[in-house]
Amino acid sequence: MAHHILRIDCPDRAGLVYQITGVLFRHGCNILSNHEFVDPTTSHFFMRTAFTTETAIDGIVPELETLLPTTARLRLAIVGKRPVVVLATKEAHCLGELLLRHAYEEFPAQILAVISNYATLAPLATQFGIPFHHITHEGRERDAHEAQMLACAAQYAPAYLVLAKYMRVLTPAFVAQYPDRILNIHHSFLPAFIGASPYRQAFARGVKQIGATGHIVTNELDTGPIIAQSVLPVDHTATPASMAQAGRDVEKLVLAQALRLLLEDRVFLHQGRTVVFA
Amino acid sequence: MAHHILRIDCPDRAGLVYQITGVLFRHGCNILSNHEFVDPTTSHFFMRTAFTTETAIDGIVPELETLLPTTARLRLAIVGKRPVVVLATKEAHCLGELLLRHAYEEFPAQILAVISNYATLAPLATQFGIPFHHITHEGRERDAHEAQMLACAAQYAPAYLVLAKYMRVLTPAFVAQYPDRILNIHHSFLPAFIGASPYRQAFARGVKQIGATGHIVTNELDTGPIIAQSVLPVDHTATPASMAQAGRDVEKLVLAQALRLLLEDRVFLHQGRTVVFA
Amino acid sequence: MAHHILRIDCPDRAGLVYQITGVLFRHGCNILSNHEFVDPTTSHFFMRTAFTTETAIDGIVPELETLLPTTARLRLAIVGKRPVVVLATKEAHCLGELLLRHAYEEFPAQILAVISNYATLAPLATQFGIPFHHITHEGRERDAHEAQMLACAAQYAPAYLVLAKYMRVLTPAFVAQYPDRILNIHHSFLPAFIGASPYRQAFARGVKQIGATGHIVTNELDTGPIIAQSVLPVDHTATPASMAQAGRDVEKLVLAQALRLLLEDRVFLHQGRTVVFA
Amino acid sequence: MAHHILRIDCPDRAGLVYQITGVLFRHGCNILSNHEFVDPTTSHFFMRTAFTTETAIDGIVPELETLLPTTARLRLAIVGKRPVVVLATKEAHCLGELLLRHAYEEFPAQILAVISNYATLAPLATQFGIPFHHITHEGRERDAHEAQMLACAAQYAPAYLVLAKYMRVLTPAFVAQYPDRILNIHHSFLPAFIGASPYRQAFARGVKQIGATGHIVTNELDTGPIIAQSVLPVDHTATPASMAQAGRDVEKLVLAQALRLLLEDRVFLHQGRTVVFA
Repeated sequence: MAHHILRIDCPDRAGLVYQITGVLFRHGCNILSNHEFVDPTTSHFFMRTAFTTETAIDGIVPELETLLPTTARLRLAIVGKRPVVVLATKEAHCLGELLLRHAYEEFPAQILAVISNYATLAPLATQFGIPFHHITHEGRERDAHEAQMLACAAQYAPAYLVLAKYMRVLTPAFVAQYPDRILNIHHSFLPAFIGASPYRQAFARGVKQIGATGHIVTNELDTGPIIAQSVLPVDHTATPASMAQAGRDVEKLVLAQALRLLLEDRVFLHQGRTVVFA
Repeated sequence: MAHHILRIDCPDRAGLVYQITGVLFRHGCNILSNHEFVDPTTSHFFMRTAFTTETAIDGIVPELETLLPTTARLRLAIVGKRPVVVLATKEAHCLGELLLRHAYEEFPAQILAVISNYATLAPLATQFGIPFHHITHEGRERDAHEAQMLACAAQYAPAYLVLAKYMRVLTPAFVAQYPDRILNIHHSFLPAFIGASPYRQAFARGVKQIGATGHIVTNELDTGPIIAQSVLPVDHTATPASMAQAGRDVEKLVLAQALRLLLEDRVFLHQGRTVVFA
Repeated sequence: MAHHILRIDCPDRAGLVYQITGVLFRHGCNILSNHEFVDPTTSHFFMRTAFTTETAIDGIVPELETLLPTTARLRLAIVGKRPVVVLATKEAHCLGELLLRHAYEEFPAQILAVISNYATLAPLATQFGIPFHHITHEGRERDAHEAQMLACAAQYAPAYLVLAKYMRVLTPAFVAQYPDRILNIHHSFLPAFIGASPYRQAFARGVKQIGATGHIVTNELDTGPIIAQSVLPVDHTATPASMAQAGRDVEKLVLAQALRLLLEDRVFLHQGRTVVFA
Repeated sequence: MAHHILRIDCPDRAGLVYQITGVLFRHGCNILSNHEFVDPTTSHFFMRTAFTTETAIDGIVPELETLLPTTARLRLAIVGKRPVVVLATKEAHCLGELLLRHAYEEFPAQILAVISNYATLAPLATQFGIPFHHITHEGRERDAHEAQMLACAAQYAPAYLVLAKYMRVLTPAFVAQYPDRILNIHHSFLPAFIGASPYRQAFARGVKQIGATGHIVTNELDTGPIIAQSVLPVDHTATPASMAQAGRDVEKLVLAQALRLLLEDRVFLHQGRTVVFA
């Protein structure tokens, strides 16, 4: 008996839950969990339902489409692993965390490949049995480099790209190929310390906590919708180097957490913010 | 236009959400938020719905009762302040926190009185304009003391009793007068350090975090359903006294948080555990 | 037998700890705790020593002054309560927290007065028996207003001014009267969300944690040395109002923590950062 | 210019810091950081000093030994990697975390081998290039099994044994071979949930936070001195399985943190508790 996830978001109106659960009821679905939320500032409705059924589910989406507003976004998916391609540069901590969790099935990802602009992490991917593609950006135009990255990724048909400390800014043309499907881990507690050398900045400012932010990539640098954030404490004995170590520790946890939420279909994007049914 | 909270819990069966939201839909209710949960180990269904309506709500509960299992527990309440009586002994931090939040309306409580077995905290209650009843336990039988406490509390018809560091064990007979309606703050991260002198125990054990637990009082000491828990870090420089200070800091926050959750009708009790729709 | 705190900071050089503890040893001091730190980026030395002695301490500082670099900053103080004046505006949560802790002696402050540009909080201060001065800024020049604030505060000879949600920017002339002696609680996890309406900003950005920062006030707005920071989690159901409630909860704790650290002489300021011997 | 760590603990008496730093001064040492602590309940003195020197250090310890109480424990070590052998059973998360950090030099360990009573984790160790020894306990006496484990470990002359979810209780005879040199990660926030099936216990109790404890192994099960603890939040939707996942996440972080503290010589043991100069 398969598990399914139904996701719907649309402008709110009276009776939506009643209508939607009616469709599921008539199709013999057994609801396991149900989350709804109406954003009070935009009157937008969000719903995530996990259910099992012993009968065919083919008719559910068409029937819902006749009932719901035409702008509704629906998705009905069977619970299972989702294909992912990871982009990285030189730092190992995030990629290593993802590969370990993947190897021991701690989240529903199928990591199909790692693409990097340096060869540094080839041994790490390879030892976990994951294909590694070194696509250097040196001596090449940005567009040509991104085109090769896209071509490489496309052969794996990933549901998501995960930027595991990929340290180059992606162009809007690249992002447009994976709209709302690129996850990034940002090296600070956004919106603080945007830009280069964040731990130098944090050290100079004398902060007492180091954070990290997992967010969806949009065209504007570092301002995409936030999925998860966390912090670790530091004190005056911290150096830029030890702040960077604290940063690595919190980054890898936040990235793994955000990816799990995405892969389990718990994240909705709406007007620059997220709804996360944790 | 009044805000209402509908709470239901009952054995799960197919179609419950559909049936319940159908009743609300036919009564013209506008659902603001909706939480459901089915406990997978007991197949028990929990639902909390916040809604507004411009029409009468009298018919909703009777109609639901005809639809739902006979063992269902229903409650439909208008959103608003709930009457509370606080029991305390000598320590000021939890009572002070509750009185401050009450005075500045940070949670929906109407604190009607403070009852204590010592006179120590009379000035604190009085300066906030709250009646204070000193009911000593000295030289009296436990039953007689509790009977006077109950009689005193009863005149205020409280929805909940809050034990804000009330340091005497309540008898089952007392608890039976307020079933599932007594909130306690426990001086540790339960189930650790049950019993006396928790910070002496914590110090002797050399713990690195100090916790607190907000829970409903049942007949068995310190084992009632847990609503909220939190911790604060300590290190080797901590003394029993500074651990107790950390304990006070975390206790008052956890108690205030647990009380808010209770008063906003977000807590269900089921087989010794809680469902908390935060 | 009195407890003393000796604080020294100066450029580092070999043998400083040896020389300093030698002076204390020859004066018969019994060291209870000792913290030193040398900032590796500036080679600046910091030391805080708590000790007891049964003999006179008059000779200690003069003897140290002959040994230490001429730019050394020394302070030898007896452990005890320090006089504080609190500035507030309309919000009660931080002032209430300070007054409660003061009343029950949870930190070594002697709160002598509350000064506010509104009358709103007069009942709160008064019920705790603390003088309240309402000095309105309305219809007055900034300089005249600040001059009256300073005159009012001066009569109490405070060691520190504490801004408990005092919502007006202080001029450099005001700050110069209490150099490194004004503590502020900032409504965000600095350096994020500087400026007005922080919770509107945080809501619009969709953050998942709400922070607060306790810092020393300098001439540049919101960039003074940070003493303490903390965060609380929020999710998509948070409104600007509930984010503000989370903000109040974390602000009051961070302010109380930062004030305790200051009053216990645990904070050194150096080049825009702090050394905190917690 | 080598970095050294000097560690001393002994009964407290006046002038210890002065005497010790005098020895260092006379040997031309440049102190980088210095921590002292006197346990007020036992009057025991602890000191950790990091220093550099360009001259020989041979004379330092002998000179200190003539000055200090005969019961003093001294250790002077050069800063560098320490040899470690890891014991594991079947769970990968802790071992994987240690191997990743080791591979990318996030702590000063030289992991020389992994020993396990099952073959499950052989691929994980091997892919990181670390020798893996499968020493089954099946069909053997406990003493014989432990003797073989000890013989295997001894060939690596480890400074520490790390139990990365090694799920068998060690006998006092085994522990006596590595006194105060075995680190364990415990599957709960000690002292709660000692014993078997901790997440079943935690689920049944309905806790709201899942913790982990890093501690030194002593002869009494789960009561050794605590080095580090942490927690992660869970809610009513948590199952024993998801609580176990939260447990894995917090266990691996706490184990890595505790091991780093040990390897950097920051941990002192004293009467069942730790002093941790973080």
